[in-house]
Amino acid sequence: MGNASPGILDRTLRQLQRALGLAGMGFGGLKSGLDPSLPDHDLDRVKQHIDDCLAERGGKVSARARAAELGDAYLTLDSTGRRLFLELLAHDYDVDGASIDAAIAARQAARDAASRREAEARLRDALVAPRVRLLAGFSDLNQGVKFLVDLRAELITLLDQHPSLQPLDADIHRLLSQWFDIGFLELKHITWSTPAAFLEKLIEYEAVHEISSWADLKKRLEQDRRCYAYVHAGMPDEPLIFVEVALVSGLASNIQDLLSTTATALEPERADTAVFYSISNCQKGLAGVSFGHFLIKRVVDDLSHELPNLKTFATLSPLPGFVAWLDAQFDSADPDLLEPDEAARLQELAGTDNGIDGLASLVSSGEWARDESLTRALEPALRRLCARYLLEAGSNSRMRDRVGHFHLSNGARIERINWMADLSPRGLGQSAGMMVNYLYRLKDIEKNHESYTGDGQRNASPEVMRLLRGG
Amino acid sequence: MGNASPGILDRTLRQLQRALGLAGMGFGGLKSGLDPSLPDHDLDRVKQHIDDCLAERGGKVSARARAAELGDAYLTLDSTGRRLFLELLAHDYDVDGASIDAAIAARQAARDAASRREAEARLRDALVAPRVRLLAGFSDLNQGVKFLVDLRAELITLLDQHPSLQPLDADIHRLLSQWFDIGFLELKHITWSTPAAFLEKLIEYEAVHEISSWADLKKRLEQDRRCYAYVHAGMPDEPLIFVEVALVSGLASNIQDLLSTTATALEPERADTAVFYSISNCQKGLAGVSFGHFLIKRVVDDLSHELPNLKTFATLSPLPGFVAWLDAQFDSADPDLLEPDEAARLQELAGTDNGIDGLASLVSSGEWARDESLTRALEPALRRLCARYLLEAGSNSRMRDRVGHFHLSNGARIERINWMADLSPRGLGQSAGMMVNYLYRLKDIEKNHESYTGDGQRNASPEVMRLLRGG
Amino acid sequence: MGNASPGILDRTLRQLQRALGLAGMGFGGLKSGLDPSLPDHDLDRVKQHIDDCLAERGGKVSARARAAELGDAYLTLDSTGRRLFLELLAHDYDVDGASIDAAIAARQAARDAASRREAEARLRDALVAPRVRLLAGFSDLNQGVKFLVDLRAELITLLDQHPSLQPLDADIHRLLSQWFDIGFLELKHITWSTPAAFLEKLIEYEAVHEISSWADLKKRLEQDRRCYAYVHAGMPDEPLIFVEVALVSGLASNIQDLLSTTATALEPERADTAVFYSISNCQKGLAGVSFGHFLIKRVVDDLSHELPNLKTFATLSPLPGFVAWLDAQFDSADPDLLEPDEAARLQELAGTDNGIDGLASLVSSGEWARDESLTRALEPALRRLCARYLLEAGSNSRMRDRVGHFHLSNGARIERINWMADLSPRGLGQSAGMMVNYLYRLKDIEKNHESYTGDGQRNASPEVMRLLRGG
Amino acid sequence: MGNASPGILDRTLRQLQRALGLAGMGFGGLKSGLDPSLPDHDLDRVKQHIDDCLAERGGKVSARARAAELGDAYLTLDSTGRRLFLELLAHDYDVDGASIDAAIAARQAARDAASRREAEARLRDALVAPRVRLLAGFSDLNQGVKFLVDLRAELITLLDQHPSLQPLDADIHRLLSQWFDIGFLELKHITWSTPAAFLEKLIEYEAVHEISSWADLKKRLEQDRRCYAYVHAGMPDEPLIFVEVALVSGLASNIQDLLSTTATALEPERADTAVFYSISNCQKGLAGVSFGHFLIKRVVDDLSHELPNLKTFATLSPLPGFVAWLDAQFDSADPDLLEPDEAARLQELAGTDNGIDGLASLVSSGEWARDESLTRALEPALRRLCARYLLEAGSNSRMRDRVGHFHLSNGARIERINWMADLSPRGLGQSAGMMVNYLYRLKDIEKNHESYTGDGQRNASPEVMRLLRGG
Repeated sequence: MGNASPGILDRTLRQLQRALGLAGMGFGGLKSGLDPSLPDHDLDRVKQHIDDCLAERGGKVSARARAAELGDAYLTLDSTGRRLFLELLAHDYDVDGASIDAAIAARQAARDAASRREAEARLRDALVAPRVRLLAGFSDLNQGVKFLVDLRAELITLLDQHPSLQPLDADIHRLLSQWFDIGFLELKHITWSTPAAFLEKLIEYEAVHEISSWADLKKRLEQDRRCYAYVHAGMPDEPLIFVEVALVSGLASNIQDLLSTTATALEPERADTAVFYSISNCQKGLAGVSFGHFLIKRVVDDLSHELPNLKTFATLSPLPGFVAWLDAQFDSADPDLLEPDEAARLQELAGTDNGIDGLASLVSSGEWARDESLTRALEPALRRLCARYLLEAGSNSRMRDRVGHFHLSNGARIERINWMADLSPRGLGQSAGMMVNYLYRLKDIEKNHESYTGDGQRNASPEVMRLLRGG
Repeated sequence: MGNASPGILDRTLRQLQRALGLAGMGFGGLKSGLDPSLPDHDLDRVKQHIDDCLAERGGKVSARARAAELGDAYLTLDSTGRRLFLELLAHDYDVDGASIDAAIAARQAARDAASRREAEARLRDALVAPRVRLLAGFSDLNQGVKFLVDLRAELITLLDQHPSLQPLDADIHRLLSQWFDIGFLELKHITWSTPAAFLEKLIEYEAVHEISSWADLKKRLEQDRRCYAYVHAGMPDEPLIFVEVALVSGLASNIQDLLSTTATALEPERADTAVFYSISNCQKGLAGVSFGHFLIKRVVDDLSHELPNLKTFATLSPLPGFVAWLDAQFDSADPDLLEPDEAARLQELAGTDNGIDGLASLVSSGEWARDESLTRALEPALRRLCARYLLEAGSNSRMRDRVGHFHLSNGARIERINWMADLSPRGLGQSAGMMVNYLYRLKDIEKNHESYTGDGQRNASPEVMRLLRGG
Repeated sequence: MGNASPGILDRTLRQLQRALGLAGMGFGGLKSGLDPSLPDHDLDRVKQHIDDCLAERGGKVSARARAAELGDAYLTLDSTGRRLFLELLAHDYDVDGASIDAAIAARQAARDAASRREAEARLRDALVAPRVRLLAGFSDLNQGVKFLVDLRAELITLLDQHPSLQPLDADIHRLLSQWFDIGFLELKHITWSTPAAFLEKLIEYEAVHEISSWADLKKRLEQDRRCYAYVHAGMPDEPLIFVEVALVSGLASNIQDLLSTTATALEPERADTAVFYSISNCQKGLAGVSFGHFLIKRVVDDLSHELPNLKTFATLSPLPGFVAWLDAQFDSADPDLLEPDEAARLQELAGTDNGIDGLASLVSSGEWARDESLTRALEPALRRLCARYLLEAGSNSRMRDRVGHFHLSNGARIERINWMADLSPRGLGQSAGMMVNYLYRLKDIEKNHESYTGDGQRNASPEVMRLLRGG
Repeated sequence: MGNASPGILDRTLRQLQRALGLAGMGFGGLKSGLDPSLPDHDLDRVKQHIDDCLAERGGKVSARARAAELGDAYLTLDSTGRRLFLELLAHDYDVDGASIDAAIAARQAARDAASRREAEARLRDALVAPRVRLLAGFSDLNQGVKFLVDLRAELITLLDQHPSLQPLDADIHRLLSQWFDIGFLELKHITWSTPAAFLEKLIEYEAVHEISSWADLKKRLEQDRRCYAYVHAGMPDEPLIFVEVALVSGLASNIQDLLSTTATALEPERADTAVFYSISNCQKGLAGVSFGHFLIKRVVDDLSHELPNLKTFATLSPLPGFVAWLDAQFDSADPDLLEPDEAARLQELAGTDNGIDGLASLVSSGEWARDESLTRALEPALRRLCARYLLEAGSNSRMRDRVGHFHLSNGARIERINWMADLSPRGLGQSAGMMVNYLYRLKDIEKNHESYTGDGQRNASPEVMRLLRGG
């Protein structure tokens, strides 16, 4: 299972056993799931148990206990057993078409407001699959929230091969969206005094600039750094998303300096700029539940309040799709890609004679970054192409770069393209070593958001606009 | 507003103002709501604001801010203004019949599973009134959860006179049921070391046996007493429901002894019985969201674990509807009510000569409790009638006494009827001074629940059964 | 015992029993302490136990356990038994004169620095009574710190009648002074969210203006009030000293307004003055260990930081010794007490014809405050005499009023005398209804302290100086 | 400075500056301390400041502030400046011989109890150097406790070369012994959820078996491990001493298995033995203040309570002085060291022909551990010699091995000598690869302590006794 460490599952299991004082259910057939001829009586027992649970046999409290027992049993299953269980939920506990039809008929037959309303309520209920009530029953287990998040993480990996599980996934997604409503999350300021068990998760989940060691992590929590995470009370030891911020003088132009382990920390009171240099989503099981917009807004608010000296809030972001897009442009022999003399000079420098193809593989390899003349020669072309990628690639409603799309949806604008800003293998391989500053100016956020989501207008600084025009 | 202390609302308001940095919205027309000719432009402004909010103009974060602003404005309104605002929500932001019709048509026209599913999702969305999204947006305000609970408390008081608000109430009820899912509540052990601000609420909310002073409260938190409350993280200073328990030797038979301020406290390790003597729901705005079943179960679990010496878990409960039922029986001249000689003897003792009517008013008055001979004479009749009330009054599926119905639904059984058990005016006036022990035996709870909710069977001890038969 | 609630002692006792797993020691003879012929063998057992403890028989850990056991036994004694135990400590475990003599001899005989030093260390040890080590051993009991504080509170009540206990008291005082060093105390901000168990102690310990109810207490913790207490980690549920502060506009001139239950609270941000209107020492057992100086300074610092709008820090204080001093002046027939015409007019108004004596009893009775003409007539005389009392009564190094002495030692100055400022019986009886503002101006504190403690100069505002001169 | 990270000192300094609002004092002369001709006026300023502080000029509160200011200045000094400052304290603020003489004279002249007592109190005061009051004043600085501990750590390193600082060290030691009285320490259970800033200190301070990484540390905090530390409220982020415990089945016989990173963790409920495998003192500045005895006792108590299944409490300890002692024995040509045939056989195996010397260097080198025949041949001899070392080496009152002395003073007995138990370079080099189990049996602890500290009897199991006799 994606993020579910066996430790947590084991502990959940023991907790359940203690809580319930119930013997395990066996699930014999499901466990030996590799055998396609699943003995009927076992599936029957599972279904009986689910039915008892949904019927609230023995009362609501007992129903919760039964849901817990099912969760318990699920955790003991191997991967085939789990898939079979999920398929059981997907197929046998889906909405009932006949009930929906009946409710629709009643609604259409209703003659007065009151009976229409009643029929609509019944219809709304009929449109919720019975399994949803079962899954919702996990909320009050100690690790039940994490359990459902991890169950979905596993489910997501099965969707490609088992598309019939998609409606189940949609149900869990809807349930988790309610549970993880932004109003119920806590914004946590992460420091070096945070429990190690939590910090360990940052190392594990950091998705943008890998945290190489505890010493690296400590550096990122020094006095001129900030780290905030959203946390849910139901899984308090796990970040849902976290952002890392550097407090600096002037807009940061490359990641190497920010992550340097030898730089001395700035007094926070002397910084004028907060640079968001990493945002990581942590829970695969929460795919499609968005926190990022709120996180950035809250952190900007908190920092403005804590440090009134901060005047600029911006990101230092990768362009994860730039090189791939460039490759595609080279492939399609886009005639506007390079100026004629540019192409000639680059081919000469690169010592490549198979034309554009050679140039494409040159950029992809990142080798050029070690050759000063090549670097100098490539800079104007790549900067210009980068501006074009940001400002023109993609559809009208959505720019091609997903990081850029996130920030522009958020109301930021494209402020600056930084050359030689991320020389890590990934930085060179995906972004040709460039990074972008997206600028968050509080008073423009709503306007920017509206013009981007409404008219597809991509806001950018004059400097970036000029680049596009080859300035 | 029911429970909403002005303090909280004021603080919410200030918080909102600070959070938003927005000028108040005025709502001029709504505020001067007594004037039936509400100026159109004001309503228009409010509607414009709601529309902007629902359209997420400026992005999700801005939408939340707008919801907050509306809440802010609501708090400044007088009662008429608030009603008008609620009516606006009820009428202008209800489900849209045409959208439902369209979604139904699409669903019925769907030919394959995928498009049917898609249509059903659309239909489900259409069945949720737009106002629900607005209301859900309060979740992340500091006092937003309490705000919505209090708003519903106020709304409920309007329902009788303004039935058109009922669909709005149903929406809020559904939303609060999700927010207050038992899995997201914390069970809090209340002691004399709990903050005074919280304890003060117990005094305010106690609904069964009034807490007369801080000294009385302290007595109820001594070492041989326990108090537990469910609390929601969104309104941590407020109990949702709380239960008071006495640890005693042998089943408690009257409330006077339990609440005596002079008794010395028992060592908890010496108690063999836990008596639940008061359960109070605290939030009128959470009417219809049930916590009591879970609370009793959790407290029984916790106490069993903490004090293995406890062998019996039972309540000491009032019979809030007994005297009223008895009156009705007297009125209907039920011939089986009293034995002939009983009636004669009672009339003689009571010095009343207008027959049954005299007896009825004698019982209602509670005066008899001061007259020893009358008391002795009434005891067998009232005990028998009490057993009849508990075991026979009401319908097959629901006993007449609401407290009894709660406990039998919960899986308890009627264990004992206690004579002269509550001599307070309310105790005499409602319950003729009697109290009932409902017994919670863990191993029988499911079975009892099933037989009561399924077959309408009311479980009782042999002793109580005998009373019925005049034993 | 003074402050030692039986609850705490009982709990300590149970804790000790659990901690030690030791049977009680009996102390038979001491317990039946009323019998003067104490059986020898019991005293012997106690002494044997103390000796074992001091000899660290069984190691340091065992010695601590033995000290605990003795504390345990002490708690079971009646008052005579406790006194006998204290006398045992006072007489049998005092410093040993012979050891001191020997150490002195060695020190005087020492020829070089090293041996002199060694002899001095030995001498220092000899000057510490063995009982001190025993008493110090209570530090690590759960309630041991409170135990020793309460033991001293009890001891202090015996000193008058049993002066031989004084050296024991001096030892405990020295030990407690170390334990309660200001550096190890925590300043706690007390609010309505503080545990009730702690707030209850404020009601109990308030020594200046009685807290009449929980409602009164709540009023004193509102947004325009502050309350701070020093607390020791070893007895976290008990304040050592606390101060109550009112945030007001302009210097408060009477206590009635401050304690009014009907006034609406001021926004703290609008206050310009913090008035310290009550300081109470809470632990009789800590007599002679002073916290007040540090408390005021810390609270001034904290408030200045929290509310920069505060410009003035001052007290509103009683003059507890004024009326008594005035009586003495009347008795001594001080000719300067009243102007001739003043005396005549007052006697006339008061309808008294036995001269000065009549006036003295008039002032003492406080009756005058109900008679407007008398009040008006008395005001100039009493104000002038009050100024004289504050500025001249007492010795050069110490003004007669103990509250005034405390504040002037602290570096405050006498700012204003307020007429009709405390009309409670105590206020009239002790202070003739007047109250004083002592002003704390940060930049003058050191200078004021020096001039008062050094030269006996009593700093006062020009206004008060003028009063003295009959202005 | 020993343990004082610059971070803490810097923060203390900034805190002081903020707290005091005072300009730095310069200390020009002291800072340029390398110049032996210290300008007089600077020393004078420092002395003036100390004198003001001791005279409590401006009041007690100001005196504390001045002490803080001095601490502040101290932190800015270089090492020579610090030494000069310490020497100033040592020489100019020592006890005053004349005052002592005068107090002695008064005491000897006293004729009655009261005046003798008074004179003794005066004498006791005279025997406390004035600097002690200055140093005590650091207690209420935020980092003041840590400051004094670190100051002493630095002072200790100077003692050898500057013996005149010894009386100052004795004063600080006495003061710290009061501050760090066991009663004021908190026992903290350290887990993987402890703040990383604290855990980092364990890695730094572990003195027995180095913690090689955060992964190693995490392993030592798993479910079958326990770690406890004593912490002082004045320096809450620092352990004073900590112990690491392994919960195992049967007495652990080697450290390799305990520290293995691949072993799976035992269910704590299944362990029957708690093995204390590492105890580390953390603060050099607390040399001579002992916590170890209390720590072991408390942890045994806590674990017995938490896990009643634990039957055996024992250590797995190094013999840090064994090889050194053995070398000395070889050097002194102790004829009983080896049996004649043993010696011959070992020399043959070792291929050494320079007799005993060769054997000595063979053992010291630890090379033998790689040669199976040698290992087998050495085992009986080394075990026997180890038993002799533990049971006979050293004086009657103190065994030679310091670890053994600690545990026997504590009341443990020598339970088992483990062969090939620590194959690390240090284990081989100091302990010839052997480790000892010291057994803590609660009921024998007092008796064992008494017989060891009283009669010098070293308690050991029959098995170890037999080894001594060559069994």
